[in-house]
This record gives sequence, structure tokens and C-alpha cells, in this order.
Amino acid sequence: MKPADYPEPFRELARELRRLPGVGPRSAERIALWLASAKDARPLDLAKSLEGAAEHLRSCKACGFFSVNDLCEICQDTSRSGEEICVVEEATDILPIERTGTYRGRYHVLGGRLAPLDHVGPDELRIDELIRRVKNESPKEVILALSADVEGEATTNYLAEMLAPLGVPLTRIAHGLPAGGGLEHADALTLQRALSGRNPLRVDR
Amino acid sequence: MKPADYPEPFRELARELRRLPGVGPRSAERIALWLASAKDARPLDLAKSLEGAAEHLRSCKACGFFSVNDLCEICQDTSRSGEEICVVEEATDILPIERTGTYRGRYHVLGGRLAPLDHVGPDELRIDELIRRVKNESPKEVILALSADVEGEATTNYLAEMLAPLGVPLTRIAHGLPAGGGLEHADALTLQRALSGRNPLRVDR
Repeated sequence: MKPADYPEPFRELARELRRLPGVGPRSAERIALWLASAKDARPLDLAKSLEGAAEHLRSCKACGFFSVNDLCEICQDTSRSGEEICVVEEATDILPIERTGTYRGRYHVLGGRLAPLDHVGPDELRIDELIRRVKNESPKEVILALSADVEGEATTNYLAEMLAPLGVPLTRIAHGLPAGGGLEHADALTLQRALSGRNPLRVDR
Repeated sequence: MKPADYPEPFRELARELRRLPGVGPRSAERIALWLASAKDARPLDLAKSLEGAAEHLRSCKACGFFSVNDLCEICQDTSRSGEEICVVEEATDILPIERTGTYRGRYHVLGGRLAPLDHVGPDELRIDELIRRVKNESPKEVILALSADVEGEATTNYLAEMLAPLGVPLTRIAHGLPAGGGLEHADALTLQRALSGRNPLRVDR
């Protein structure tokens, strides 16, 4: 006797769900169960949103953020300054910066960071596009806002080397103690960076 | 200046993904990013599998397992014994039992377990269907294979009360030490059940 298995449409759905990042075989089965049997699952709504995204979403031709037009909401916004370009790894890094409410410039999405072990070299990232933008748009500052880890550092250094000849002022976001973080919980590297990045304290009296 | 946000098709996709069980707002955003930008994401394949599941999948009219026909693969399989009915909570509980390769009877999916706090009473479960099946099919044994937790126990006891008048022999799966589990890692309740469920040891000499 062959052990029973799920019908093919269920297996196909679980297979497709298993491809999603962060979804293992067990969660895929659980989600498929839910989609196939829960009253309020509405699998066709999810299907429709996938088709909508596939049909309408594209990358902004200038910065690489998500857009439904050639240029994204941010690049089209004339109230924004063109004097700063903030370079980030992924399109999803833009919204956290937006939410701070303190940055009014534009962005440039690299699409990842240098990772030789994963075969991600400079050609896989939108670095040529960045250089072209810096030449054409002549910003007053390029802010490198990449991850504070080894690959992020390497990418930051690589970009600094590539951009330096263009003469544009380069900055990077600060590394140091996170807000609310006590010294006793900071790892040695964070503390070292917090120390070496120390700022003069102004005392007015 | 209003902070930028993702375009509507992206937000819609993330909203739909967030409804899936076990997917929080951050994973939803991460999965949407992947679906919208990864080269091998193929969101339309996932959409198609959802439509396929919505169109073809139904519940077996007899046992409640997933099926593409009125009766599922298991209920259609004439090589299977009709003498045992194994009662499980969810359709996904069937395959683990199938994989043991030791059960050759049929199943009955309750569709959950009694959970008064979540407003799941006897009417929400396929209990009437079970009673009807026992009357019609006159199995030689009904095996209750529900979870070994409070709600599973309560449901088992309720089913036992409902089925007892029909005179069908009732069994429940054993509770005790899991395979490979040492006594020092077993909690008190597991150990108590293992003790109270102890079996006579046959010594042939």
C-alpha cells in the first residue's frame, strides 16, 4: 500500500509557498492548509495582488526604488532636494530613512552589496548608474547608508574609491551606540566604533 | 514633506501576505520585496498555484481530507480496510500517520478541536458526520488520534461520550515518552502519562 499524499493542487501550492524567503517546508504546508481550508483565506485575493505586482511594479529608472511609473514618487517629488543622494543597499532600506522625517534628498538603491562568496561583484550592483547620476546631477553630498557589517563596510569602501575621483563630498552614516543601548550590552566592535566616532561636546556657559 | 511610501501594488501585496499564518509585517515586506524584485521569484507561478488550489481543491465528502474529487484518494482506495476509522483534528494530521506505514484504515477529519474560548463548539466540528459514518459503516474500531493537550483531551472525552452509545470499540493513541527522549527531559505530565499507560512486559524464557 502506497501512503496517501495530498492532491496535486495542494502539493503544487505548498511547493510554490516553500520558495518564499523564510518559509520552510512545515510553514509552507501550514500556510497551504490555511489557504485551502480557512473560511476567510481568500486565496484569489492573494493571487490578484501577485498579478497586480507583477504587472504594475517596476524599478524607478533613476534611483531603483519601487515605482508604477518610470520615475518613482520620490524622484518625481519636486519639493525634494536634488543636492543629496543617499545610497542604500535595498529598496526596503528607503522607508526606514523616510520614517525618520529628517532626510529630504533623493536615494540610490544598489540592489545589494558586494559579496564575493555569493558571486555578487560590482557589475551586479547599480554602481555605474550611481556614478552616472553623480556626474549628471552634481549633488552636493553623497551619503553612504549601507549595513554596519563586513560586507556593508567593504561596499562602502569600494564606493568611496569609485566616487572620490568625481570630487563629490562623501559621508557615511554614523556607527555607534544604538538609542536606548547601555554600554554593558554593546559588543566590543560597536563600542570601538562609538569611541573612534566620538564628537566634540559643545558647552555653552 | 510627506514621507515616501511603497507604490500601491507593493503595499497591496504586502497586506495580502501579512494575512498568512505565521507571517508578520516584517516578513510580509521581505517576501513582497523578494517577489517584486528577485530574478527567480516568478510571482505569477504562485498566483497560478493559488488559483489552481481555489478551483480544484475540496474536502472529501466522507472523511474531510483534501481531494480533487467528491471522495479523496484514501476513501477511494479499495485496498484499504473500512474496519478502522482514525479521527484526527486537521487534514494535515493524516500524512504523518500515513508516513508511519502502519495504518491501513480510513480517517475522519474533525476540522479542529473543542475550544470554547475561541467559540469552537461541537457544531463547528464534523462530529455529526462522524456519528453518521459510524452508524453506516459499522467500523470495528474508532481510533481517537487528537492532540495530547488540554483541548485535545477535552475533545477526545467529548467524542468518547458521543460514540459510546453506538457500541463501537473506541481506542486512543498512546501518550508517553517520545522516541529518543530521556527521562530527565520529560516533563511531569508526560512522565505521569507514561507511567499510567505502562504496558505489561512479556518475558519469554
